[in-house]
Amino acid sequence: MGRVVDVPELVEQAREGQPRAVARLISLVEDASPHLRAVAAALAPHTGRAQVIGLTGSPGVGKSTSTSALVTAFRQAGKRVGVLAVDPSSPFSGGALLGDRIRMQDHATDPGVFIRSMATRGHLGGLSWATPQALRVLDAAGCDVVLIETVGVGQSEVEVVALADTTVVLLAPGMGDGIQAAKAGILEIADVFVVNKADRDGADATVRDLKYMISLGRKEIRGAMWRQPIVKTVASRAEGVPEVVTALLDHRVWMTEHGELDQRRQRRAEAEIEAIALAELRSRLGDLRGGTALTDLGKRVAEGELDPYTAADELVAGLRG
Amino acid sequence: MGRVVDVPELVEQAREGQPRAVARLISLVEDASPHLRAVAAALAPHTGRAQVIGLTGSPGVGKSTSTSALVTAFRQAGKRVGVLAVDPSSPFSGGALLGDRIRMQDHATDPGVFIRSMATRGHLGGLSWATPQALRVLDAAGCDVVLIETVGVGQSEVEVVALADTTVVLLAPGMGDGIQAAKAGILEIADVFVVNKADRDGADATVRDLKYMISLGRKEIRGAMWRQPIVKTVASRAEGVPEVVTALLDHRVWMTEHGELDQRRQRRAEAEIEAIALAELRSRLGDLRGGTALTDLGKRVAEGELDPYTAADELVAGLRG
Repeated sequence: MGRVVDVPELVEQAREGQPRAVARLISLVEDASPHLRAVAAALAPHTGRAQVIGLTGSPGVGKSTSTSALVTAFRQAGKRVGVLAVDPSSPFSGGALLGDRIRMQDHATDPGVFIRSMATRGHLGGLSWATPQALRVLDAAGCDVVLIETVGVGQSEVEVVALADTTVVLLAPGMGDGIQAAKAGILEIADVFVVNKADRDGADATVRDLKYMISLGRKEIRGAMWRQPIVKTVASRAEGVPEVVTALLDHRVWMTEHGELDQRRQRRAEAEIEAIALAELRSRLGDLRGGTALTDLGKRVAEGELDPYTAADELVAGLRG
Repeated sequence: MGRVVDVPELVEQAREGQPRAVARLISLVEDASPHLRAVAAALAPHTGRAQVIGLTGSPGVGKSTSTSALVTAFRQAGKRVGVLAVDPSSPFSGGALLGDRIRMQDHATDPGVFIRSMATRGHLGGLSWATPQALRVLDAAGCDVVLIETVGVGQSEVEVVALADTTVVLLAPGMGDGIQAAKAGILEIADVFVVNKADRDGADATVRDLKYMISLGRKEIRGAMWRQPIVKTVASRAEGVPEVVTALLDHRVWMTEHGELDQRRQRRAEAEIEAIALAELRSRLGDLRGGTALTDLGKRVAEGELDPYTAADELVAGLRG
């Protein structure tokens, strides 16, 4: 944009909790600006402290309300809180750090809360590729807790796990698809289950169904067992929210005791490094022979002259050139 | 499994239309057997003839019924037909070439129809990586038409486009999410719209909504315009199905005349080559320094000693080693 960017100064200001600096840094990573690498390098030494909590669940279970209630609870405990709302349906991203979502208006004027909506670039579902870097900005800005809220579309539910220390899966009574989704893989990704709207009919049945499913597929880590708790809430009235906070704390303690927190963070870092490396390699493959190598090979495969595996071998061999 | 595999003989038998050979070849590519490359190489000269039609849409719009009705129509026109049903919710894959889906039972004993269900390996949604190779098997086996049916979950809708010459998006009246999905990107991927269950209330409203949305976002290719037709069907009674077949034919003629068919197949081949090359590079990255390179870098990033971009640079540099 032609504006002069002083990355070290911005990072310093963000560490002091200045909202404008935080917003600016997130914009720099989200826009993949030329300063992206400088920002990443400047943030690195100041990261690793925040507790990262992912919230996911089908549309209608009350994710925004639950996120807002958790923010309130963490604020009451004196924590500094960051929220990344990853929303593919949102036409806008960036900009409004101060509550661009109605549910979050309660926190809009609280200097101890950073809220950021991120659009997912590209296709339906899925987390923005910029989310890990945005997470680092909030971490470096001194957030004790960062909540990542996603819409409940297949892939994004899985990807939130790759970023979070603890993943909360929200369900609501009477939503058959909540349980369906659970069958399709949610069971494996949940560290904590929350049955929201628990004042509605069917809440106990949902809890019972969940308990049964959990009993079928317990997850064992390093010989120890984390028993996924099920917490009933009415997030709109903050009922059950303290119990959720307790469950999150329990999970963190359990992970720390079993070395699982370090393991998860290590895997997260590896996945991120790999993704960046593959993006770089993909770009190099596309540039081979002035961008003609892949086109020529594609033509030969389309015409049946070559099979795609042999073509891929030729392409990879070109990297050595 | 210790069975002797004679790839050239299998390909020869598949080209003669022997169902067991077709099934066996698909299993070989689906299981990523050691013979995968040999199969791909043997198939290449015999591919590129089939018309590949993708069908997608939200659950409940009648995709299986529509697919079955189209199979009947193509069979009546004397065409040999292949069906790849990509179904993430299916716990099984492979095996049942002869109608493992109830809707397809009508075609189970027809030697001119090959039906194959493919589970999507890995996560929710998305097409199986083996689908392009399975497509080549059916193509080489002399199928005039291959129908690829996906479940309507975000990413798979997009991926079917990468494989199909023509993409059909199915909607049904009164399903608000059909139109919602359309807003979220389906408009761009559809070559032909089908409003199924058109005997229900609201069919005309759905058509009207679609027309309005199409008018907002027409797609222009090489200066020419393909006007996405909207066909009303009641697939369970085969009503409107001949009109769908006509629309598919029209689109094929239009694509051929405008060079779009070659363009699409070229892009498809490029995407497949790139995916195979990246999988190979990913594997090499994982193997660097006996598999310790990524682990060590991940540790340093997790500890804040290194940023992920610098780590990725180091990893990529290792490939040169």
